[in-house]
Amino acid sequence: MHIEPEHIDAEAEGGPVPSRAPTVDARIYPRGGLDVLSRDEVARLRDASAGGMHDLLRRCALAVLTSGSASDDPRAAQELYPDFDIQVLQQDRGVRIDLKAAPAMAFVDGEIIRGVAELLFAVVRDLAFTAIELDPEYSAELDSSAGTTDAVFRLLRNARILQPADPNLVVCWGGHSIGREEYLYTKQVGYELGLRGLDICTGCGPGAMKGPMKGATIAHAKQRRRRMRYIGITEPGIIAAESPNPIVNHLVIMPDIEKRLEAFVRMAHGIIVFPGGVGTAEEILYLLGILLREENADLKFPLIFSGPASAAAYFEQIDKFIRLTLGDAAAERYRIVVGDSVEVARIMHAGVADVRRQRIAQQDSFFFNWALAIPHEFQQPFIPTHETMAALDLHHGRKPHELAADLRRAFSGIVGGNVKEPTMRLVEANGPFEIHGDADMMRALDALLRAFVAQGRMKIAGEYRPCYRVVA
Amino acid sequence: MHIEPEHIDAEAEGGPVPSRAPTVDARIYPRGGLDVLSRDEVARLRDASAGGMHDLLRRCALAVLTSGSASDDPRAAQELYPDFDIQVLQQDRGVRIDLKAAPAMAFVDGEIIRGVAELLFAVVRDLAFTAIELDPEYSAELDSSAGTTDAVFRLLRNARILQPADPNLVVCWGGHSIGREEYLYTKQVGYELGLRGLDICTGCGPGAMKGPMKGATIAHAKQRRRRMRYIGITEPGIIAAESPNPIVNHLVIMPDIEKRLEAFVRMAHGIIVFPGGVGTAEEILYLLGILLREENADLKFPLIFSGPASAAAYFEQIDKFIRLTLGDAAAERYRIVVGDSVEVARIMHAGVADVRRQRIAQQDSFFFNWALAIPHEFQQPFIPTHETMAALDLHHGRKPHELAADLRRAFSGIVGGNVKEPTMRLVEANGPFEIHGDADMMRALDALLRAFVAQGRMKIAGEYRPCYRVVA
Amino acid sequence: MHIEPEHIDAEAEGGPVPSRAPTVDARIYPRGGLDVLSRDEVARLRDASAGGMHDLLRRCALAVLTSGSASDDPRAAQELYPDFDIQVLQQDRGVRIDLKAAPAMAFVDGEIIRGVAELLFAVVRDLAFTAIELDPEYSAELDSSAGTTDAVFRLLRNARILQPADPNLVVCWGGHSIGREEYLYTKQVGYELGLRGLDICTGCGPGAMKGPMKGATIAHAKQRRRRMRYIGITEPGIIAAESPNPIVNHLVIMPDIEKRLEAFVRMAHGIIVFPGGVGTAEEILYLLGILLREENADLKFPLIFSGPASAAAYFEQIDKFIRLTLGDAAAERYRIVVGDSVEVARIMHAGVADVRRQRIAQQDSFFFNWALAIPHEFQQPFIPTHETMAALDLHHGRKPHELAADLRRAFSGIVGGNVKEPTMRLVEANGPFEIHGDADMMRALDALLRAFVAQGRMKIAGEYRPCYRVVA
Amino acid sequence: MHIEPEHIDAEAEGGPVPSRAPTVDARIYPRGGLDVLSRDEVARLRDASAGGMHDLLRRCALAVLTSGSASDDPRAAQELYPDFDIQVLQQDRGVRIDLKAAPAMAFVDGEIIRGVAELLFAVVRDLAFTAIELDPEYSAELDSSAGTTDAVFRLLRNARILQPADPNLVVCWGGHSIGREEYLYTKQVGYELGLRGLDICTGCGPGAMKGPMKGATIAHAKQRRRRMRYIGITEPGIIAAESPNPIVNHLVIMPDIEKRLEAFVRMAHGIIVFPGGVGTAEEILYLLGILLREENADLKFPLIFSGPASAAAYFEQIDKFIRLTLGDAAAERYRIVVGDSVEVARIMHAGVADVRRQRIAQQDSFFFNWALAIPHEFQQPFIPTHETMAALDLHHGRKPHELAADLRRAFSGIVGGNVKEPTMRLVEANGPFEIHGDADMMRALDALLRAFVAQGRMKIAGEYRPCYRVVA
Repeated sequence: MHIEPEHIDAEAEGGPVPSRAPTVDARIYPRGGLDVLSRDEVARLRDASAGGMHDLLRRCALAVLTSGSASDDPRAAQELYPDFDIQVLQQDRGVRIDLKAAPAMAFVDGEIIRGVAELLFAVVRDLAFTAIELDPEYSAELDSSAGTTDAVFRLLRNARILQPADPNLVVCWGGHSIGREEYLYTKQVGYELGLRGLDICTGCGPGAMKGPMKGATIAHAKQRRRRMRYIGITEPGIIAAESPNPIVNHLVIMPDIEKRLEAFVRMAHGIIVFPGGVGTAEEILYLLGILLREENADLKFPLIFSGPASAAAYFEQIDKFIRLTLGDAAAERYRIVVGDSVEVARIMHAGVADVRRQRIAQQDSFFFNWALAIPHEFQQPFIPTHETMAALDLHHGRKPHELAADLRRAFSGIVGGNVKEPTMRLVEANGPFEIHGDADMMRALDALLRAFVAQGRMKIAGEYRPCYRVVA
Repeated sequence: MHIEPEHIDAEAEGGPVPSRAPTVDARIYPRGGLDVLSRDEVARLRDASAGGMHDLLRRCALAVLTSGSASDDPRAAQELYPDFDIQVLQQDRGVRIDLKAAPAMAFVDGEIIRGVAELLFAVVRDLAFTAIELDPEYSAELDSSAGTTDAVFRLLRNARILQPADPNLVVCWGGHSIGREEYLYTKQVGYELGLRGLDICTGCGPGAMKGPMKGATIAHAKQRRRRMRYIGITEPGIIAAESPNPIVNHLVIMPDIEKRLEAFVRMAHGIIVFPGGVGTAEEILYLLGILLREENADLKFPLIFSGPASAAAYFEQIDKFIRLTLGDAAAERYRIVVGDSVEVARIMHAGVADVRRQRIAQQDSFFFNWALAIPHEFQQPFIPTHETMAALDLHHGRKPHELAADLRRAFSGIVGGNVKEPTMRLVEANGPFEIHGDADMMRALDALLRAFVAQGRMKIAGEYRPCYRVVA
Repeated sequence: MHIEPEHIDAEAEGGPVPSRAPTVDARIYPRGGLDVLSRDEVARLRDASAGGMHDLLRRCALAVLTSGSASDDPRAAQELYPDFDIQVLQQDRGVRIDLKAAPAMAFVDGEIIRGVAELLFAVVRDLAFTAIELDPEYSAELDSSAGTTDAVFRLLRNARILQPADPNLVVCWGGHSIGREEYLYTKQVGYELGLRGLDICTGCGPGAMKGPMKGATIAHAKQRRRRMRYIGITEPGIIAAESPNPIVNHLVIMPDIEKRLEAFVRMAHGIIVFPGGVGTAEEILYLLGILLREENADLKFPLIFSGPASAAAYFEQIDKFIRLTLGDAAAERYRIVVGDSVEVARIMHAGVADVRRQRIAQQDSFFFNWALAIPHEFQQPFIPTHETMAALDLHHGRKPHELAADLRRAFSGIVGGNVKEPTMRLVEANGPFEIHGDADMMRALDALLRAFVAQGRMKIAGEYRPCYRVVA
Repeated sequence: MHIEPEHIDAEAEGGPVPSRAPTVDARIYPRGGLDVLSRDEVARLRDASAGGMHDLLRRCALAVLTSGSASDDPRAAQELYPDFDIQVLQQDRGVRIDLKAAPAMAFVDGEIIRGVAELLFAVVRDLAFTAIELDPEYSAELDSSAGTTDAVFRLLRNARILQPADPNLVVCWGGHSIGREEYLYTKQVGYELGLRGLDICTGCGPGAMKGPMKGATIAHAKQRRRRMRYIGITEPGIIAAESPNPIVNHLVIMPDIEKRLEAFVRMAHGIIVFPGGVGTAEEILYLLGILLREENADLKFPLIFSGPASAAAYFEQIDKFIRLTLGDAAAERYRIVVGDSVEVARIMHAGVADVRRQRIAQQDSFFFNWALAIPHEFQQPFIPTHETMAALDLHHGRKPHELAADLRRAFSGIVGGNVKEPTMRLVEANGPFEIHGDADMMRALDALLRAFVAQGRMKIAGEYRPCYRVVA
């Protein structure tokens, strides 16, 4: 018997999206402590012409309403539900949401699934806050590193996920497109984390972002935990492609990828990296780039790379690449544990206890890692062009964290050249990017990327044609 | 890749019991609303010599501590943990439990899993209550039908599971030894019930008793239900063989099978029967025997037989047997739904709403079905011997509910002759039981039992040799 | 402006009972966790003919419904509401209470005050439990001291007031007929106890039984305590005369005065005695009689006699009487603090902490003082007759706790001869009781009783004619 | 026996401030859901030099810490606790407050009273929010009426008191210096409101601002309400003089009197005005000025003037003055109920139900009265000078709401001329203000003010010398 990856779980969550998608009209009222919006905030959300706010709301809402759907094609939902619309209204007890032609899969016998409704209200809350609080003063505040961090803090606070509780939040990174064995392993790790009272935070899509939450759900039920957190941190550009798992009970939409990454690392009390593609590699370099700075040298930050036994080769290659480029010292920042979910959970549990002790000793907050120094260049978006890519300086001898920053940019540019439309067009028009660097480093980079392709971790239609050219 | 039935779930719950079983010594304190025991009650539990009470406690506790174990051999746990012991002590804040050489699988890094601890305290509570409240006056009160029902009521009340909440409790019956397809189907049905806000009650073993709870767990998480009930009703004689699933958050140990069956039907707002063996057949006849009484003719009692598409033949045969023996009218009491979990949940949801309306109209309680008339002969245990089996009167022309009672006894006797030691010895000594009845009925009975054997629903070592002989 | 004692508070609680008492018919449903009754239990409560049970329920219910009334004449309520009736019914969600011609003062715009409804359901619960659990086996179990204590335990457990929480329960004793200054002082002490997180338990009538609860209510509000307990312990014979203050949120009706007293001393983590009459004197002797037993010599039991500065003389006289009769050692069991509510609260707070430590060291429960040895003679009711009174042995040289027991009986007999009808008739028929004792002790007893009369602490119509004669 | 007004209650709350004030050093941690502050916010609070922010915090904190003190002299606390200081620090679990030489009266045996700690954290929260959110953009946003309303909304939302619950908030206005009879009456009204499930909001000082809360506390306890709100709305300029009653469990500090008044009328579902002085008269005119605008003609807004029987003359005079100046139509907006607290509560209860229906019909929010039109001139502060006072136009023939606005300004100016230092100096330097108006109106104004003086409702040292001169 052959079982398709995700087949069982997809069934359990409402089944694959049928070709002709049934819809429902509905009015949704929040239950309990919903956020209280002002007239002005409600008006903004309603106003379709105000800078595309309404369209953004519509797309994000659709992603939430198709949560658990088998498809991960961002345009699929748009095409299946062309008449879908959403309106936010002020009502006697707070806010009301009116849905038109909404996906029936979010409903049971005409009633919306409670968890989906909660995510829907989170979308409204975050978009309203972002639009109103950040917009007018955006440019000024975000010019400084401290200002950017403050904006990230305020967005998370507004989402009510900064709680003065004991440290227990484990961020899990990894690919959304992984095999069944790897998926089951992430579930297993989530289960062991959950048994130890740890909460989970991921990017809230499928694959490695969903497995740990599912595993933790069963463990938390066994441990009779009632206030467990399954935090999903996403961004408007990606929510459509990676619709939040309905186990997510705290959803935050950060305005862009840089703030999303900062949210991850400032909220995490520890991070586990599961196998993934070039995006995951970029995340690793982002984090190592930060941790290698001298200011962060003494900061406790448990970091584990883990996968099933079959993923051993994958992590070996990653490890080799890091040692080659950033030096053996960089490798001291993480541990690789393969095929042992209990060990992963034990190390993380002990590591989080270390974090707790350090925060107390340094009188730092439990819920937001203020002490982590994130240089402004990691906070500013990198826009890949032939100029910026050619300007990257991938040579030995640089400070590791500077080299990490440029390597991250290289990966970011390659991701763009592969899948993001504006960047792809640049490459089509002007040929592949040229990347300058030492020969050994360039070979390792190339090998790593080809391995990702070979292992099916990069979604490429047709034969793979690299969007870059290595210039040693 | 071939995946064994239950393999994934077994992994997720701690894995198969290793051949050399590690143990842990521990002191367990209840959290929150534990029951307050008197000195006398604590003394009874402590006193090992008092009529085997301590041994009973020890066996039940061991079952709970090996909850989720892959094995269903009742003696396995005893052999794996020969030095296990349990003591109950009065402590400053209430009760304390001391465990010696307890199964390590119930612990995470030395700390007991919270849900297991809760079940452990439930075991203590029920055994203490049963011993003290029922024992002295047992014989007198249980001489009457009303007295027996009252005892059942008080046991359930003491277990805190009679709540004045809206009707939403679905009892699920079915085999503990079912194939993967059937298991996944029970999970699917549980998921759809959970989405509709229904709680689950089962016999709390594996298979069809676990699937619906697992499915409901995911659905309740999505619906953000916080006070969901996964009730397991068991009995001392069977808890060792069918150790409670750790999702069970309310465990009740009824003193014998008859009170356990009465607890099921008086608490249920509806019952779903999944495929099972001769035990399940006995349960069906028990319930139909009661429902066919004139006093219960107008009582709403949703009853659905369901399984995956592949189980269609199974239910056809059951249906045919019931129509032949009890008449077509009996078949009006249930609906057969095959391969459609959504439909099962919808019918049950509507049926429970009917029950609610009827209870209000008749001013009956939501939490205990007082109106259901259960004759005393259904409450008294049937002891199969050659005399009692020969005395069964399986002929056409009898009142359906009387015939159902005798058919149930026949099945009960056959179960005993197959697997219960005292009854097996009777058969060995004196030859097979003789069962008297009309020829067509006898043939149907024989065919049904042979089908169970063929489908692997009866655990028989070696070739099947019937313990009965049909005398038309 | 002259303000009558209690005038302000009486106003605040609904005002004095008008001469023509308005009534209301109502159906009451319990909110939340009501107790689940069986059909049999409901039937008993409904059955008016069953041994006066219905009349008892009716009288207790009326006391609760006139809670806060200014009058303390037990017959007043009966006369003001002659048509009042109560029925208990089983209903879909639990139990329903139907009231006919009930006092309007328990309602606000036709709706019953929630706290009154809770007390009403407590009355139903306790009478049902007492009738069913204690009645049949009463005689046997209560023949032993341990059996009596177990009965007390089970009654309190059924009332849900045995909680495995940290020790914090202060029992307050004192007169129901005290002056305004004394009343305000009890309120002040309650306020200081409440500030320190202590809960209050009293006999639940007016005066010294109400003041501490009122004071604690304000303090608990300031301390933002949410689960505070104001426990009232009463008995059927007295509830009509001392209707429970509606601040009481846990009401228990014990079957007789002896079990009520045992409930007080086994639940208390400390006791404060405010000024009172002969009843209070009886309570003091009951408690000292127990504490002076050798078995209780090392038991921590904080005991404070306290009142406003003006009560100094009162406590001096009590102290002198105790020293004279029971010896100076007896006086080491209590402290007298006059006119300093903060000091009282501090001593009690520290004393309760000592109790906590001792319970932990001795592994005794927090919620029930099992370690306190109460001899059976203190548990059995004393019936005053000329024979039993003459048999009292009030001479020096006896063991202090034996003498205390007889002194308590003497006070008990005098209370009866003064106010309880059967005893009064005995005295009328046969002349005053003769009490035998040493001359000095008899003089002191006489002086004490005359002082109570002079201070208005004994309700005597006309000139006081002693019901006893001292025989030295 | 003579009882001083407030004597009993003052005792119950910790007694009068002793002449030599004892102090305590302490570290305070918030319990549960404290607000999460950013580093920047904490830094601002810590920074003593930043525009007097620290001094403001210090003064407000001192007011809260002397809550319940008998004195209402704003400078008293400053003088009694000259060394008091407060620091706010970021700590592992959130925020920590360090107190130096703080009033011992806020502590019990060295531990801060929980309710006081909550108010302290509310002070920190509001000052931080006001400083950071309002300051930079203040001028721009507050130029418009809608912008001002939005600022008020955001301040209240940040204080977590805008809840999407059913309408039940009654605002009580009235003097802080009232006689005992009037005080007991406000308590009685609060009790009756509380029995009907209504919450209380006042200016949070003594007198008529405290009585209703105390009465409601007892009633809410009887009704077993657990989430009752006692909201105090104050401003930095007045909190020192009117330190919040510790029953207050939600405290908001609005930046100025105009925003405070707007907060009252937008949050209220009904308002009760008790007797008071010139400040209360100003409040009445503020509210009537708004309600008389055509836009608000159909808006439900229950408004009751009430006091004990002895206050009948007071309200007659107020009523006469309103009818003379604003016309009989103005008098249709309120009802005068004298000496009947039950009637007041019934009318208010029914009125709030009307408000609820209207909000639903108009789809307006329950928690903030967006529909109430408040003209910008009512939102802008009035600065009394000889010019602005002379410019007031108090003649018949003007639109009632315009005349009300000017009358309010006249009262505001007189309050200033009497008690606010800058205005007093103006009058000393340049003689009394000249107020122009029709002769009858001027006479009535004068008579009203003289009556306030005669009744002791205005605190005047020495003989009263009017700060104004009426020019007909």
